[in-house]
Amino acid sequence: MIDLTAEVTIKIPFQDVDIMGVVWHGNYLRYFEEARAALLDKIDYGYFKMKESGYAWPIVDARVKYIKPLTLHQVVHVRARLVEYECGIKIDYEVYDSGTGDKTTKGKTTQVAVDMRNHEMCFASPRVFLEKLGVST
Amino acid sequence: MIDLTAEVTIKIPFQDVDIMGVVWHGNYLRYFEEARAALLDKIDYGYFKMKESGYAWPIVDARVKYIKPLTLHQVVHVRARLVEYECGIKIDYEVYDSGTGDKTTKGKTTQVAVDMRNHEMCFASPRVFLEKLGVST
Amino acid sequence: MIDLTAEVTIKIPFQDVDIMGVVWHGNYLRYFEEARAALLDKIDYGYFKMKESGYAWPIVDARVKYIKPLTLHQVVHVRARLVEYECGIKIDYEVYDSGTGDKTTKGKTTQVAVDMRNHEMCFASPRVFLEKLGVST
Amino acid sequence: MIDLTAEVTIKIPFQDVDIMGVVWHGNYLRYFEEARAALLDKIDYGYFKMKESGYAWPIVDARVKYIKPLTLHQVVHVRARLVEYECGIKIDYEVYDSGTGDKTTKGKTTQVAVDMRNHEMCFASPRVFLEKLGVST
Repeated sequence: MIDLTAEVTIKIPFQDVDIMGVVWHGNYLRYFEEARAALLDKIDYGYFKMKESGYAWPIVDARVKYIKPLTLHQVVHVRARLVEYECGIKIDYEVYDSGTGDKTTKGKTTQVAVDMRNHEMCFASPRVFLEKLGVST
Repeated sequence: MIDLTAEVTIKIPFQDVDIMGVVWHGNYLRYFEEARAALLDKIDYGYFKMKESGYAWPIVDARVKYIKPLTLHQVVHVRARLVEYECGIKIDYEVYDSGTGDKTTKGKTTQVAVDMRNHEMCFASPRVFLEKLGVST
Repeated sequence: MIDLTAEVTIKIPFQDVDIMGVVWHGNYLRYFEEARAALLDKIDYGYFKMKESGYAWPIVDARVKYIKPLTLHQVVHVRARLVEYECGIKIDYEVYDSGTGDKTTKGKTTQVAVDMRNHEMCFASPRVFLEKLGVST
Repeated sequence: MIDLTAEVTIKIPFQDVDIMGVVWHGNYLRYFEEARAALLDKIDYGYFKMKESGYAWPIVDARVKYIKPLTLHQVVHVRARLVEYECGIKIDYEVYDSGTGDKTTKGKTTQVAVDMRNHEMCFASPRVFLEKLGVST
C-alpha cells in the first residue's frame, strides 16, 4: 500500500483575511483543495488523470470545523489523508500552525465517481482508481 | 416570534464556475454568507450590530451537501433558516433552482458568541441577541 | 444602434472586505464581471452565445482606478459601457455609491476575439458580433 | 541600495481556472499580491510594519496585461520589482512559465501612503519607508 497522506504549507495571504483580522471561513476550502491536489498527485490520480480515466469525481459533501482562527501571514501546514476509497474518496484534513504545531482546523470531503460515458454515479470506486492505490480488486 | 428565514437570489457568476463547467464547491459558502447576512439583517443583528453589542460570532462549523451541480448563469434562491439560537446560532441553508424549484444544495453553519471584553466563548447566547429574537429570558 | 450600457447593483459582501475594513482591490474585477455580463446579455452576446458563434473573447487588458474605498454592506451601482467594438470589445466601468452618487472606482477591460477553429486572434471583430450591435458591415 | 525584486512560485490551483480552462483574469491580482508581500517583506515593510509605522498604503491603480493564458497546475514564477518609491510605491510584475521561461503576464500596481493620524494622503513617501530602502532623505 502506498502512502496515503500529503501535506502542503501555506502562508495566509492578505486577501483571505476578513475585517475581523482572521481568515474568512469559506477560504479554508481553498487550503483543503491544495492539500487534496497534492494527495491525488501522489497516487498519480490528479485532475487530468481522472479525466483521462473517464471519470469525474465531484465533491458531494464538505465539512469544516474551526478550532482556532488563522491570521494574516500565519504559516500553516495542511495535511490531507485518504480515509476511504472503496465507495468514493473520503479525505480528512488537519491544519496546524507551523511553529507551535497547534491544530487549528479539521475537515473532510467526500467525492464520488461519475462515469463520463453515461453521467451516472458509481456506487463502488472504479477499478482504475483502486489500481492507482495498489488495491487488488 | 419574528420570521426566522430569509432568501436571496443569485445568478451564478462566471468566475465561480470551474473547468468542469460547474460551480467550484468552495464558492457555495459565499452564497450561504449572503443569505445569512440577509437573515441577520432581518432580526437587526448584522455585522455592525453584533460588533456594537460587544460580541463576535465566529463560525465554528460549516457543512455543505451537494445534490446537483450549479452551472453558469443559473438563477438560484438561497434560503437561510435559523434553527437554533439558545447556545449559539445554527442556520440551515437550502439552494434551489428558480425555475424548476429543484433543491440543489443543503448546508448548515454554527456560530458561537465570543465576549469581546475578555475574548471568552459564551456557552449560552447573550441576552442582547435573544432580545432581538423577541425571546423572553 | 442599441443601448450600450448596463448597470448592476451590488451590496458589498462580508468576504470581499479585508483587514483594513475596505474591499480588497482584486475583488473589483468581480463587480466588473457582473456588469459586463449584464451588458453582453443585453446585446444577446453573453458567454453561451459567444461560444455558439465560434469565438472566444479572452480579456487581454484590465485596469482599475480606485478613487474611494468601498466598505462592508455598502450598496453600489456598477455601470458598464461599450466604448469600442471594431477591433475587440472595450468596456469602461464606473462604480458609484447608491446613496450619494459619488464615484468610487473606474476601470476598463479589453477583449479580443479568438477564432475557435484555428485558435487565432482576430484583428477585426467578427461579423457575428457586429450584427448583434446592429452595425452594418 | 538593497535588492528591489522578489519572486514567488505558484502552481495554478483548481479553483482559479474557469470554464474555458484558463485562469479567470481577476485571479492574477492574487498572484501579484503574493509577490508584492514577498517584496515588501524583503525590505521589512510588510503589512504589520506599515501599520506600526502609522501609514496605510492602499492600492490606487492596478493594471494587468494578459499575454498568454495560464492553465490548471501550470507552475509559474511571479516577479515583483519596485520601480518607484518617492511619491508612492509602484511595482511592476511579470509572470513567466517555470519550464519554458515564457512571459505570460505583465502588470503594475500603485500605492500611496495615507497618514493614519489624519487620514490624509501623502504626496511624498514618508521617511519611515525611505529609510527601509536605505535612501538618504
